Amino acid sequence: MNLSEINTPALVLNVDALERNLGRMADAVRSTGVALRPHTKTHKSPWVAARQVELGAAGVCTAKVGEAEVMVRSGIRNVLITTEVIPAKIDRLLNLAAMGSVSVVIDSVDAATELGRRAAARGMEIQALVDVNVGQERAGANPGADAVAVARAIVDAKGLRFAGIQGYEGHCQHVFEYAEQRRRAFECYERLAQTRQQIADADIPVPCVTTAGTGTYRFAIEHGVATEVQPGSYVVMDDMYRRVEQLAFENALFIVASIVSTNRPQWVIIDVGWKAVSTDAGAPGVRDLAGTRYEPAGDEHGRIYAVPHSAARVGEQVWLVPSHCDTTINLYDHYELIDDDGKYVGRLPIAARGAST
Amino acid sequence: MNLSEINTPALVLNVDALERNLGRMADAVRSTGVALRPHTKTHKSPWVAARQVELGAAGVCTAKVGEAEVMVRSGIRNVLITTEVIPAKIDRLLNLAAMGSVSVVIDSVDAATELGRRAAARGMEIQALVDVNVGQERAGANPGADAVAVARAIVDAKGLRFAGIQGYEGHCQHVFEYAEQRRRAFECYERLAQTRQQIADADIPVPCVTTAGTGTYRFAIEHGVATEVQPGSYVVMDDMYRRVEQLAFENALFIVASIVSTNRPQWVIIDVGWKAVSTDAGAPGVRDLAGTRYEPAGDEHGRIYAVPHSAARVGEQVWLVPSHCDTTINLYDHYELIDDDGKYVGRLPIAARGAST
Repeated sequence: MNLSEINTPALVLNVDALERNLGRMADAVRSTGVALRPHTKTHKSPWVAARQVELGAAGVCTAKVGEAEVMVRSGIRNVLITTEVIPAKIDRLLNLAAMGSVSVVIDSVDAATELGRRAAARGMEIQALVDVNVGQERAGANPGADAVAVARAIVDAKGLRFAGIQGYEGHCQHVFEYAEQRRRAFECYERLAQTRQQIADADIPVPCVTTAGTGTYRFAIEHGVATEVQPGSYVVMDDMYRRVEQLAFENALFIVASIVSTNRPQWVIIDVGWKAVSTDAGAPGVRDLAGTRYEPAGDEHGRIYAVPHSAARVGEQVWLVPSHCDTTINLYDHYELIDDDGKYVGRLPIAARGAST
Repeated sequence: MNLSEINTPALVLNVDALERNLGRMADAVRSTGVALRPHTKTHKSPWVAARQVELGAAGVCTAKVGEAEVMVRSGIRNVLITTEVIPAKIDRLLNLAAMGSVSVVIDSVDAATELGRRAAARGMEIQALVDVNVGQERAGANPGADAVAVARAIVDAKGLRFAGIQGYEGHCQHVFEYAEQRRRAFECYERLAQTRQQIADADIPVPCVTTAGTGTYRFAIEHGVATEVQPGSYVVMDDMYRRVEQLAFENALFIVASIVSTNRPQWVIIDVGWKAVSTDAGAPGVRDLAGTRYEPAGDEHGRIYAVPHSAARVGEQVWLVPSHCDTTINLYDHYELIDDDGKYVGRLPIAARGAST
């Protein structure tokens, strides 16, 4: 297929740029003594996950049990589910853990007790980490006594093995200025380090300290508390992460749109609206058309402002750069793959698309 | 299955409420002489489309060729594609038109000429309407001479049959105040009526005038210009349409979330973030929890503010009302069906989910 004939809107992934991003992260982490456990919630592709493991990743992360089901059933053997698993999903979790190594995070004594009891009833032992709130104010046990209590409950539970602590500083990922981002991330790592010490002081060894994303993995490594980092978006990048200073990854993901109408003088209309690009992080960027900008115009349409109309024809392509890769990828059933030369090289299923349960 | 055991996040559709909404719209239109052609871009389900046809719909609308492919291949025989079809998709369109009646909208002379030529080359005749810009400033020919020229090009094209005009007043759908909404919609219908007259003055009969959505179908019928209305969202409604005055449809669509963490005093954390509910029309509503509100907390999480913590337990369900049904439905692969009593009655594929090409 010629790329000019692609059905639009299409989610296009440059596999050469992807491979460079995968290699850069693997290289950046390899010599540090810190393990790399990439987050697959971004790409949702077992093929990309397998490539990450080939390049040295210790395993992968998923956000949900549903994503872990896709990864494990595709042959990815070592998965950490980075959000809390509610009791109603424990049977699914245990079924999955029988097929491959699946570890979990826990942020309450009750949750540790319940999962431990049910795992033990099936003769299983699940690796569990304490999820610590390092400042994102989302899930996670409070640092200090609360986190120590959860660690103790995990140690005491017959069906669980205490594997360490997780403290995701999601609120630091998009602090664009380098020094400020580093300062805020370090505050989070200090909380993690104190919590690790408090748990160790309770005579509980802490094998793993897992944290960080694409914006902060470098600070987590520099600080020294992390034994493992969880970046996800670096594989393809997006217009938000592009603004984060000193990140050595390149944009590999595009939406190819078509101009569908040129009847208004102020703008041209393309076939990408809310159903084909996420806008939770603002509008996507417009590639190769300096001075233009995109604005949603409903579910199925977008406006491109300030395109020279002499250059705009119905059927011509406009390439967008997603503002937020994760939520945009989650709208599509497959990637259309290209190489650096723009040659079409195939289609890749987004196997975990919509696997939000 | 018991509803309390449903895997969350789940998109839940009350089929009794759906049936009442379908019946109310069918009843409201039946005696008016105006045809009902519901827009399936909202529900994306051939089963719902078939029920709409059973209740008297003249056919259905889709926004995209991809959606029309799903509908026609599922047995829906009369489909109007309400957005412009670019030349690269004409082969798909003609293949589909060989399987069932598919009509299109056109907003330029060039597009009419190209589609007409290629349909004629295959010995086919496609029904085509002029898409008129009645004020939404998106696609559509300008009213007046431009629209007449497109109509003439359709009449002159061997592979096309002129079927009428479309003028969607999308910008009027969410004007909440009744009299103001009516006033603005009428302005659009006047533009449509003038365009119809201008085309008729050029000795081109205009069989069909199709327009309107859930917010405005009643005004289109009252005005008299419309021969057909295209409402979509009335089947399930949403939190935006709920605010439109004097609409006699009820909410039939919910997202069932689970509380996953209760460690923060200010809010509880649920398992619904940007990947499980659209926020292009603002935050979803929270059902059954007066005084609370939802805020996204990332791809996979949301915060519910001001829940009495005495009432909040991990694993408990929170029901959300989507702010925008179309874009939320497009995130899910199936509906979980319930009846008025809250009994689980099955699962329905959202067959055209992601069919945006």
